[in-house]
Amino acid sequence: MTGRTTEQHMEHGKQGKHADAALIALDWGTTSLRAYLFDAAGNVLDTRVSTAGIMNLPVPAEEGGFDAAFEEACGVWLAPAPSLPVLAAGMVGSAQGWVQAPYVETPAGEDALVAGIVKVRAASGAEIAVVPGVLEPGALPNVMRGEETQIFGALSGMSGQAAQETALIGLPGTHAKWAVVEGARIARFYTFMTGEVYAALKAHTILGRTMKLPAAPDTAAFLRGVTVAREHGSAGLLATAFSTRTLGLTDQLAADEQPDYLSGLVIGHELAGLEAVLARRDVALAGCAPQLIGADALCERYRLALAQFGCTGAQVVREATERGLWRIAARAGLVRAAA
Amino acid sequence: MTGRTTEQHMEHGKQGKHADAALIALDWGTTSLRAYLFDAAGNVLDTRVSTAGIMNLPVPAEEGGFDAAFEEACGVWLAPAPSLPVLAAGMVGSAQGWVQAPYVETPAGEDALVAGIVKVRAASGAEIAVVPGVLEPGALPNVMRGEETQIFGALSGMSGQAAQETALIGLPGTHAKWAVVEGARIARFYTFMTGEVYAALKAHTILGRTMKLPAAPDTAAFLRGVTVAREHGSAGLLATAFSTRTLGLTDQLAADEQPDYLSGLVIGHELAGLEAVLARRDVALAGCAPQLIGADALCERYRLALAQFGCTGAQVVREATERGLWRIAARAGLVRAAA
Repeated sequence: MTGRTTEQHMEHGKQGKHADAALIALDWGTTSLRAYLFDAAGNVLDTRVSTAGIMNLPVPAEEGGFDAAFEEACGVWLAPAPSLPVLAAGMVGSAQGWVQAPYVETPAGEDALVAGIVKVRAASGAEIAVVPGVLEPGALPNVMRGEETQIFGALSGMSGQAAQETALIGLPGTHAKWAVVEGARIARFYTFMTGEVYAALKAHTILGRTMKLPAAPDTAAFLRGVTVAREHGSAGLLATAFSTRTLGLTDQLAADEQPDYLSGLVIGHELAGLEAVLARRDVALAGCAPQLIGADALCERYRLALAQFGCTGAQVVREATERGLWRIAARAGLVRAAA
Repeated sequence: MTGRTTEQHMEHGKQGKHADAALIALDWGTTSLRAYLFDAAGNVLDTRVSTAGIMNLPVPAEEGGFDAAFEEACGVWLAPAPSLPVLAAGMVGSAQGWVQAPYVETPAGEDALVAGIVKVRAASGAEIAVVPGVLEPGALPNVMRGEETQIFGALSGMSGQAAQETALIGLPGTHAKWAVVEGARIARFYTFMTGEVYAALKAHTILGRTMKLPAAPDTAAFLRGVTVAREHGSAGLLATAFSTRTLGLTDQLAADEQPDYLSGLVIGHELAGLEAVLARRDVALAGCAPQLIGADALCERYRLALAQFGCTGAQVVREATERGLWRIAARAGLVRAAA
């Protein structure tokens, strides 16, 4: 799929000129590209967002799509300062990306990420340092690309003491990740296809046919779904999902309650699964105080859902992406580390 | 959606004339219509199959779509014998069907189904007796339409003794059903959206992107998926499904192994869920000898998967639909019951 990345897709910052610019950092995923311009103190001077994710480049990759997207996003910053260092994280480092930055294996600390950086030179001459993803090998392997950078961004907000202890970090979304960080290294992590499966159930199964979008998010319906998933978790999502339909058929769930109920079911099954995998290592989800990284409204849903599992200490982390990119750039020597 | 039901879609029997015809019986679902012509001894004389399911009528329902589909399927049989009794089961009795035959509640025996029959008169004058579906009320209700008829068809193949005992009957498919029959009544049942979720995962998530169809069904890949679901069932399908991708990324699962691996995962999660709901009533799946109703290849997959759960006695039931329709027609007095 070849998408468009036009000026209209950009959230323009002010002008391109920033006399104190020190770093360009990219969060370059499958469906979007977010570019940040930092000053030497790690403050974000400007942000540009486009839809030019790696599966949605303005022209095909083999016709210079990555260069075109990069130029479109960052050309205005590089024109007055062509020697600005550039760091990128996310799917841009995958086999389908601009350059492949092979996975670093768990347990993965910041130094391992920095050591795994691979560089690619743009047509314009700029050199882009690409952060590797993380692989947890095993019978059921797990992979992440981009989340590792956000996780280290979340850690940068903790005290030195807290960052050395065990932390649980959740990244809700299309493919939700839950990472266990031990001694400032990503020790292990789990992926749940929650967002993508929810979208597929709504759009491509019978469940979507009787649904109406509510005027406003229906928290009660959402929590009802979470509770059903928690209480009937062992029956599995394949079974509980059908209740979206049968509760509708029996007039126990209105059409405009069904989307949030189903959302509660899938998130509830994710958390029931998380509880089970943590329990295998004698960790109780109820005793954790997870850090959540993601869109505010979604993180708030997770906070409510986690509370149903007795986990009431969840906190939302702000600007984890920007902080993670800055921190890795500093560790990699692309910028002078702040004190 | 308005579909076509043309002569080309019919599997023609011989001519329409059958001097010994005694009953027309219809299995009329969402996407297909199967019509059977029986003689007075309950033998099938002729079968006609069309794509005129209730969501796929040749003309819209409000323009006589049910009449048109019925005439197209059965007119050739009714022309020489307009007074033949007609029985129909399936979604034709739903709120979106020709006439609504309200659900009978569990525990549901044959007499309750017969008592719940609702009749509709076709434009041609024929009267169609429509079998009701079954509802299991409760916090998470379950519904079936059509499967109740197949279940009684399966029971008709058992000895009188066996039919009075507890039986577990599985109906794999788009919405797989598992029914517990006690004393010749459907005591309770469970629905798993296995087939539909599998199709949605393949066609509408990232998992489908790296898949290739194998030249022949890959039983080893299928069983590998079943085993992963059984061993990691508590993590849930949202987690294990992602292994289809990560095993591929790490060269542990070939592209043409991925479809059957994922099929094994979803069926494995269905059986893990079934095992859990049966266990709540102190029934061990491993100790059951389920009857399976469905397409041969799919039932064979389930037999193999069930064996992974220690359940080695599963047997496939043939012609459950035809036998169930005949049995209910006899009980309803539409035909003289065979000895």
